[in-house]
Amino acid sequence: MIIIGELINSTRKAIKQAIEERNILYIQELAKKQVEAGANYIDVNAGAFVDDEEEHLLWLIDAVQAVVDVPLAIDSADPEVIQKGLMAHKGEAMINSVTAEKEKLEAIIPLIKKYNAKVIALCMDDNGMPNTAEERLVIVEKLCDSFASAGIGLGDVFLDPLVKPVSVNTSFGNEVLTTLEEINKRYQGIHTTCGLSNVSFGLPERKLLNQAFFVMCIAKGMDSVIIDPLDKKIMALLYASEVLVDRDKRCMAYLKAVRSGIANA
Amino acid sequence: MIIIGELINSTRKAIKQAIEERNILYIQELAKKQVEAGANYIDVNAGAFVDDEEEHLLWLIDAVQAVVDVPLAIDSADPEVIQKGLMAHKGEAMINSVTAEKEKLEAIIPLIKKYNAKVIALCMDDNGMPNTAEERLVIVEKLCDSFASAGIGLGDVFLDPLVKPVSVNTSFGNEVLTTLEEINKRYQGIHTTCGLSNVSFGLPERKLLNQAFFVMCIAKGMDSVIIDPLDKKIMALLYASEVLVDRDKRCMAYLKAVRSGIANA
Repeated sequence: MIIIGELINSTRKAIKQAIEERNILYIQELAKKQVEAGANYIDVNAGAFVDDEEEHLLWLIDAVQAVVDVPLAIDSADPEVIQKGLMAHKGEAMINSVTAEKEKLEAIIPLIKKYNAKVIALCMDDNGMPNTAEERLVIVEKLCDSFASAGIGLGDVFLDPLVKPVSVNTSFGNEVLTTLEEINKRYQGIHTTCGLSNVSFGLPERKLLNQAFFVMCIAKGMDSVIIDPLDKKIMALLYASEVLVDRDKRCMAYLKAVRSGIANA
Repeated sequence: MIIIGELINSTRKAIKQAIEERNILYIQELAKKQVEAGANYIDVNAGAFVDDEEEHLLWLIDAVQAVVDVPLAIDSADPEVIQKGLMAHKGEAMINSVTAEKEKLEAIIPLIKKYNAKVIALCMDDNGMPNTAEERLVIVEKLCDSFASAGIGLGDVFLDPLVKPVSVNTSFGNEVLTTLEEINKRYQGIHTTCGLSNVSFGLPERKLLNQAFFVMCIAKGMDSVIIDPLDKKIMALLYASEVLVDRDKRCMAYLKAVRSGIANA
């Protein structure tokens, strides 16, 4: 499982404040803790700062790269900010994210190429956010065709089906699960990922829904996830799930996690 | 989700003792609690008593039916004991279980017909226990053909893929998940079920593995399960999972479970 640690995100109040105050130790500690807990990428987002996102993001990148060796996921809605982030980032980064919106796709594809970046590709296009698996798969095809034309390998692509709240429509869970299954069937070597928490928006006991949805996504072949790796229950379920879908030979990672007190029922 | 409450099983020490001592209140309390927690069937098993299984099973059936209205799952390896159980049972029962072993199948099929029983059909035949999904699906076909020839509707059949420990071979989880998916694709109207706990045999933190496996089975379409309905975490995941696979319209059951303190993260 390729874990993208989601905690350093300016939409979270404590993070926004730490960025404003240039509280570098707080940010660095959070980066280190996520890596220790198993994060393979650390997401950095300064999108809550409308006017000076770029300045704050560059500060975050420097601060985090000073203390961890894993690559960062440069998280911005603005392709120009992403480009500045990629220029500042040492080594090959991940872009979070591109969509199939024409303008965005045309802006991001050259950056993926130039910086040898991985990319999270969200199932969204100029028609907006899809509801059904069918609609998502049309967008997936558009995205994959564009990547292929540009010579970007599927192994660099992390497709995110776009999770929507089941409180709005209870079919939304299944539509994502079906999408994951189909992507993994149709596109050999591609990665699939998602942010879980949107699924439970508007309902009580959100963590419970996120936990179950996470396990279901793994059962459908998802091999990456955007999560809080400090969430013990999520990580415990991750280790258990990897055994159950035969991604943990001889249960080595599971047994190690149990011994470390991470994987508990 | 059709829940088969597994607790009244003589292989559990406390139950064996209660049966021996004719501790009717203990057994009845356990039956009532399981029904209150959502069990649709109460399994009754006296198989630990080699010589007088029948006598003990009949006592269990009477004791339990005196206090609950749900049907029982008559759980025995011996077709003659099952027949006696069905004769004693008021209303239509479930048979736990039949396999594709020739002798057993021939003994049980007339009982399903005669007593209008539901039946748990285990993926096992005279060649023993299958390892792969492919082997399981051959047995499933044999079972379903036999049921069809006898005029037994698929709606009365609960197919159990036969769960084996991932500690023996880490492929065993996936093989069951694939089997569930294929059964639900191929046989419209059939039920699928399983006992979860075998999956984690031989590993630490078994409940964690059982929890994750349960959620995965639901993602693959399983609509019944043999569990301890008093296990709060399993029940919480059940309610969350049903929302996520669109079996709980407007999240009504989930919200009710949250209000009752059952569905907690």
